[in-house]
This record gives sequence, C-alpha cells and structure tokens, in this order.
Amino acid sequence: MADSTNKKATIYFAGNDLFVGHSPSGHAQVIETDSARNSAATPMELLLIALGACTGDDVISILKKKRQQVTEYRIEVNGERRDDFPRSYTRFEVKHIVTGHEVSAQAVARAIELSDQKYCSVAATLRGAAEIMTSYEIIEASEPT
Amino acid sequence: MADSTNKKATIYFAGNDLFVGHSPSGHAQVIETDSARNSAATPMELLLIALGACTGDDVISILKKKRQQVTEYRIEVNGERRDDFPRSYTRFEVKHIVTGHEVSAQAVARAIELSDQKYCSVAATLRGAAEIMTSYEIIEASEPT
Repeated sequence: MADSTNKKATIYFAGNDLFVGHSPSGHAQVIETDSARNSAATPMELLLIALGACTGDDVISILKKKRQQVTEYRIEVNGERRDDFPRSYTRFEVKHIVTGHEVSAQAVARAIELSDQKYCSVAATLRGAAEIMTSYEIIEASEPT
Repeated sequence: MADSTNKKATIYFAGNDLFVGHSPSGHAQVIETDSARNSAATPMELLLIALGACTGDDVISILKKKRQQVTEYRIEVNGERRDDFPRSYTRFEVKHIVTGHEVSAQAVARAIELSDQKYCSVAATLRGAAEIMTSYEIIEASEPT
C-alpha cells in the first residue's frame, strides 16, 4: 500500500452518467453511475472490490510467510445496504477461498484475523459504518506441487 | 446506483501482488497492491475514486434539475490516513469544481449538501470512520452556450 498519508484523486464528469476517475498514482478508469446501463463498475461496487483486494493482499502475504502452498486464492465479498437513503453499506461478508496443498486451517484463520483486525486499511475504514464478517474455505488442490 | 441490497464481488489473486476484481455487475479490473510498482490503482485509491464519482453523480444530477448550465465538472478527493496500522482514512476533503455559465453558488452548495447528507451511499459508508469536508469552486465558462 502507498505510504504517503495525503493523496489526491481527480474524478471527471464525462457526460451521460459516466465519470473518469484518476487515482493519485495516475491510473484512470471509467465509473458508471447508471446501473441499469451497466457499462462499468459503480462507485458502491468499487468498495467491494477494494475490500477484497486489500484483505486478500494481507492474507496471501501472511500465508506465504507461513510457507503455505497456495495454488489458487479468491475472495468473495458480499455487501448489504440500507433500504433508505443514504443507501450505505451496513454489513459485509468476506469469504476467503484458498486452494492448495495441505494448507493449514489455523494459518488461514490467523492470517484473516491479522488482516481484519490489524492490517487492512480498507476494512478499518469501512468498519466505521458496517460490520465485517469473515469466513474461509480450504480446498485441497488435485495436483501435487 | 444499483437497487439490489445484496450483491457479491469476487476478487482473484493473480500472482505477483496483483488482483483481478470482478464487480457484482460483471466488470473486471486489475488492482495493484504493490504501490512502488504502481501498475494499477490500489484498494485505498479506489475508495477515493468511488467517493468522488458517487457524490459527483448526485451533484451533477441536481444541478441539471435546477437547470444550471454546467460545461465541465470535476471532483478532487484528498484522503488522510492514520500513521499506524490499520492505516484507515481519517479525513476526506472533497472539492467540487464546476465550470459553466452563470452557475448559481447557492445551487451548487445545496446540491453538495443534499449529496453529502442524504444521497451519497459511499460518503455515508465512509463517514463512519472519517470526517468528510466539502468545498466548491465555480468557474465562469469563457464561451457562451
């Protein structure tokens, strides 16, 4: 993660309910605000993706340090929102799905706990408004390393 | 914005500190977690972009309803983070820069207030952890409509 404490993004209105966001590091992306048209991810969707990648980065890094043999890894993030405006998130369910060779459940549980409680900046930001529930599944890889 | 209250994103570890996020609506994007390499936006950067596009969508929609003649519009979002882990955001500065013909300051201020207090789901989510300061600048367009 970036180590600067102060960074600026610029988001340009591109017309027709579209925006182009420029991240502080200079990367641009289209953002959709008309979910019916669905031409790109919406702002609220970006929060789900940010949460998954942030905690995923912590978890895979910790599992590597613990010398776990992970062959595939994905994170599923589900968000529940308020029915009324503002339709903020109230709850996230984050499921870590780890495929590998004899991956330790204890190691996975500990990695998730460290990310959730100590390291993940996105989770710590979102937790102010929403509870975050974590779970995991370990799948034994069919082929040997 | 999406009107479903329950949606799932999947984020795949792609190796080498990269993730590929799939939004609930099916849009994929690369996410960088090695900010030194800087090959794509990081998770924490996505929060800034999401906040800007979310509030920007509200503001431009309201200004259109108020028949304001906006020719250009951008939002600058600055985030301050904790120095210690977890390095969550503690404060956002959101500046709306509206270019147009005789755009009403009162209309802009009211649009921002409505987004900030009532409509913007991203702001309402992030406000749980961080304060959000808003400001605006109105620039007179050089050419007539």
